[in-house]
Amino acid sequence: MEEAAPLTADDLRDTWPMLSPEDRREGFELLGRAEAEEFYLDLDGEDQLEVVRTRPEGQRALWLRLLPPDDIVDVLQAADEAERGWLLALLDDFTREEVGALLAYAEDDAGGLMSTRFVRVRPDMTVDEAIRYLRKQARERVETLSYTYVLDAHQKLLGVVSFRELFAAPGEKRISDVMHTDLVTVPEHMDQEEVGRLFAQFDLVAVPVVDAEGVMKGIVTIDDIVDVVEEEATEDIQKLGGMAALDAPYFQVSLWEMVRARAGWLVVLMVGQMLTATALDHYEADISKAVVLAIFLPLVVSCGGNSGSQASTLVTRALAVGDLRLRDWRRVLGRELSASALLGGLLATVGLLRILLWPDAAGHYGPFYADIGVTVAASVFGVVVWGATMGAMLPLVLHRLGLDPASASAPFVATLSDVTGVLIYFTLANTLLAGTLL
Amino acid sequence: MEEAAPLTADDLRDTWPMLSPEDRREGFELLGRAEAEEFYLDLDGEDQLEVVRTRPEGQRALWLRLLPPDDIVDVLQAADEAERGWLLALLDDFTREEVGALLAYAEDDAGGLMSTRFVRVRPDMTVDEAIRYLRKQARERVETLSYTYVLDAHQKLLGVVSFRELFAAPGEKRISDVMHTDLVTVPEHMDQEEVGRLFAQFDLVAVPVVDAEGVMKGIVTIDDIVDVVEEEATEDIQKLGGMAALDAPYFQVSLWEMVRARAGWLVVLMVGQMLTATALDHYEADISKAVVLAIFLPLVVSCGGNSGSQASTLVTRALAVGDLRLRDWRRVLGRELSASALLGGLLATVGLLRILLWPDAAGHYGPFYADIGVTVAASVFGVVVWGATMGAMLPLVLHRLGLDPASASAPFVATLSDVTGVLIYFTLANTLLAGTLL
Repeated sequence: MEEAAPLTADDLRDTWPMLSPEDRREGFELLGRAEAEEFYLDLDGEDQLEVVRTRPEGQRALWLRLLPPDDIVDVLQAADEAERGWLLALLDDFTREEVGALLAYAEDDAGGLMSTRFVRVRPDMTVDEAIRYLRKQARERVETLSYTYVLDAHQKLLGVVSFRELFAAPGEKRISDVMHTDLVTVPEHMDQEEVGRLFAQFDLVAVPVVDAEGVMKGIVTIDDIVDVVEEEATEDIQKLGGMAALDAPYFQVSLWEMVRARAGWLVVLMVGQMLTATALDHYEADISKAVVLAIFLPLVVSCGGNSGSQASTLVTRALAVGDLRLRDWRRVLGRELSASALLGGLLATVGLLRILLWPDAAGHYGPFYADIGVTVAASVFGVVVWGATMGAMLPLVLHRLGLDPASASAPFVATLSDVTGVLIYFTLANTLLAGTLL
Repeated sequence: MEEAAPLTADDLRDTWPMLSPEDRREGFELLGRAEAEEFYLDLDGEDQLEVVRTRPEGQRALWLRLLPPDDIVDVLQAADEAERGWLLALLDDFTREEVGALLAYAEDDAGGLMSTRFVRVRPDMTVDEAIRYLRKQARERVETLSYTYVLDAHQKLLGVVSFRELFAAPGEKRISDVMHTDLVTVPEHMDQEEVGRLFAQFDLVAVPVVDAEGVMKGIVTIDDIVDVVEEEATEDIQKLGGMAALDAPYFQVSLWEMVRARAGWLVVLMVGQMLTATALDHYEADISKAVVLAIFLPLVVSCGGNSGSQASTLVTRALAVGDLRLRDWRRVLGRELSASALLGGLLATVGLLRILLWPDAAGHYGPFYADIGVTVAASVFGVVVWGATMGAMLPLVLHRLGLDPASASAPFVATLSDVTGVLIYFTLANTLLAGTLL
């Protein structure tokens, strides 16, 4: 009973991110063979590299070769130049060539995502011949059997047969008679985000990657796309939170990288807020005369920031998932003007009541407290409508300029809205309170 | 040359969201048969319902039956009670029973996601028999052939064989000898978000859904999970932007629903900002004495809000994708304290320099401008550290309380940070400027 339960792959997976390199090596060596393989295959490229690196020299090739070529590429991409040499030397010639071809692609290209191990047949085979041939290919490592690609002698892609169709077709039919020729394909250098959108739009399970000559290079399968969708959403969320996107999970980013990803925007936003200080400077005389204006200032301007955050978040996400496009901007503008007018009206009422109904309002805010209430209410209405309009249009403008719409983050929109909110507030105050407080 | 090009499915897909019901019906009828089917199959449940509803009575059954049972369930879920009756009457008995069973599940359960059309074999079949049997099943509509599930006579799940393994195995072997018995399964009522995490953790392509007795009910395939991942990310993004999640794409939500989703948080945040006004009220005398404090107030407090937005966004997303867990809170706290101390130091320096190096600073801010600079710098440091700490801990606290961590939105954290920022700023001002300005 005193003996500790044996370590399982699950235990190690749970604690892995928190372990020191030394503890990771020891933990890994405590796993049984099958557990170790299962655990290793589930790791990402960087951690797989660490495992390979810490194996005894004679075992390294074995571990690296456990991975399919596209995963080996991830391991190599995590390694520095110096390490790549000995890692490549661990591979057999055929795999090394495949990996070399894949390495030439950018990590977030269709080419960088694809697997070269797809199943292929010739158009003049019969269905029965193709099934026998596939049965042979299935013994090697292939990415998926769901689709069989029909290639000519020059590896040009002619068509595709789903496995189900092949299976259901009469055995003596020719492949060329059962294949589909109206294919969705993607070019090698298509950005992974766009590949993800194609999968969603056409409900794809796998898509062939072809070069400019129509030669088939590989396939991207939907399981890679799940990671892409999650990764792209994480990047957008981080950008919308007002920082640069991190390229690794929270605990795997060094403190220095974390600070760097956050510092840039914080400084930009602070400089933006200096414009608010400058604008306020301009109204210093007004504030001296009516300190009460300063008291309601944060309340007023933050309503604009909040309404702007909502609008920019909505529009940025709708753009990312393809729910709206640049040319829809008029409809977005109309929609945001209507929504924000209603929201602005609601908040203005809340603000007005807050001041009018405050216990001993006159004693507290002076004899002109009702005028102050009207000024605050009118300003709230103005900043809410303005914030939503700006928040909704900014991602579209950024997109139009070829920039990332997600840069229209909540803090950025809030900052822009603070500066303009000050102008709206004091302009209205100078109009509505002229002759009374100002 | 004058004749308009025929309408394609792509054209209609592009304009669909903007069309009136009447134009949708007309556009759909302009499509050729094959185009119409392709277009229809790509629609979501609500739009498919609209198509079925607007077909002539004799054609409705045909269109509804084009869909697999799980998609029919989506159509029924989009319909109101009154319509469900005639829709169900369009189905054949067998499908109606399948659909009825699926309808009993919540939309975002594993049961609501799954398909009942999986391929099954018996354990005592040989590999060759199983392949022949599958070839027959493949002619019917099955969700995927990638995995073959091995069930006993009571439909209990015994094991699984991947199609590739089945294909590569010697023909005379028994299924029970080639099947895997260490299965990942999910219970019928597991939340879809959790199902999504399992797919990511185990790199799954399909997962069987079983009831409490181990009876297999269906499979969830990875193509459904892509939608889940995207949907859940969209919900989180909208919540992080400071609003309730919408349950449909931007243009498909009515103006009224849009306003309702946004109004709640806007009012809550505004009431929160009233605390800021109340706090400022308390320092009215200080502001009267030193209006310059009011001028730098938005600059100081917004630094805290921005740093808090970053931290809450990071932690909320890391929780959602499983990069960190509740029990990691100490490490998160340590990490955020270090990062924010560095960031706070940086911003404090920027703030100090902004005041010290301002042209004619003494003329502008008075003889104690250096003291003001130090007050601003110290406050910026304080609010940045406090904002990040609160922003990072709040999602964890919400999660601990069983609430949604994404409610710790950028605007919410900014509001909390504004209130506390005012206290930090004026407390420091009263200490550092006592005897000079205050």
